[in-house]
Amino acid sequence: MKSPELQNLIQLLAKLPGLGPRSGRRAALYLVKHRDSLMGSLVQAMQEVAQRLQTCSVCGNLDTCTPCSICSDMRRDGSAICVVETVSDIWALERTTAFRGHYHVLGGLLSAIHGAMPQNLGLTSLVKRVAQGGIREVILALSATAEGMTTVHYIMDALKVYGVAVTALAHGIPVGGELDYLDDGTIQAAFSARRPYS
Amino acid sequence: MKSPELQNLIQLLAKLPGLGPRSGRRAALYLVKHRDSLMGSLVQAMQEVAQRLQTCSVCGNLDTCTPCSICSDMRRDGSAICVVETVSDIWALERTTAFRGHYHVLGGLLSAIHGAMPQNLGLTSLVKRVAQGGIREVILALSATAEGMTTVHYIMDALKVYGVAVTALAHGIPVGGELDYLDDGTIQAAFSARRPYS
Repeated sequence: MKSPELQNLIQLLAKLPGLGPRSGRRAALYLVKHRDSLMGSLVQAMQEVAQRLQTCSVCGNLDTCTPCSICSDMRRDGSAICVVETVSDIWALERTTAFRGHYHVLGGLLSAIHGAMPQNLGLTSLVKRVAQGGIREVILALSATAEGMTTVHYIMDALKVYGVAVTALAHGIPVGGELDYLDDGTIQAAFSARRPYS
Repeated sequence: MKSPELQNLIQLLAKLPGLGPRSGRRAALYLVKHRDSLMGSLVQAMQEVAQRLQTCSVCGNLDTCTPCSICSDMRRDGSAICVVETVSDIWALERTTAFRGHYHVLGGLLSAIHGAMPQNLGLTSLVKRVAQGGIREVILALSATAEGMTTVHYIMDALKVYGVAVTALAHGIPVGGELDYLDDGTIQAAFSARRPYS
């Protein structure tokens, strides 16, 4: 009894991560209810993003220019590359302002199950970037999952010949975390990586 | 470090019910990743809905024509009106095919806290519809909350003079529900409304 236009909108909204058939219906009704205030600007925002956003040819970041604003920022340290899985990882790291170097987005992790091979990910381009020289350190900021570990080993192996320092983010207790609520693997990692008070 | 276009899209997506700032970021990245397959069709679907969908002048349903396809369906029983809060309630009832009459969408429930008054809701138009005659039964399919109950009492009061039967959906144990997991109010209502096996 829904009109086909509305049915189509619901089905498309339900494809977004975090939304399903039921929340897609809710979102569609919300959009219709706020058609002047929200739906118009959302259409415009999506059209602008579709037209203007590009993938950085150097690092794989999303920006309106390529090379992206991070790659072309002369104040940043181009000799350090932080390897991340997705663009949202760049955003998370940039929020901390802990890192002032360049990035490299893989777009996924090596996975035999999902058929993710090195050539489909940004791994080949990472090796090329390092081979061109001028890189001092490659920091691996990847998930601590089986796929993440496989990818870490692949990168370590591929970069061995170039003599760059390859480091990884530290494992340990999250700041503000309580021991009692942590999994055994994390406690074990934090214990074996214990450091003297400085 | 996000481009303003992407930032804008994320903020708009985060306004949808069921999405927040974090899932808005995920949804925006998903849209960029599937810009050919999903983003284009979503833009088109929203434009079509914005252009073609209207609110039915009789019952408040959303459709491409007014009166809507339910109101103008001659095979349906126009002498029974089912009063619901939102359009999605019509969809839920239509899925069951339990009701073959007409609907009336209130667009909300009476609430002193949220400042929802009879004239802002579809209550005045409901009374007008009944006053025009030809209505035999008004079925109230509203939430069993304090606001729902207030609205039920208001409608009962307003329709008293017109001599129509006003009924409400039955309270009781959900089909497939286990007693142990139900709240006391529901069990109480189901107990006092017990019926002989037919």
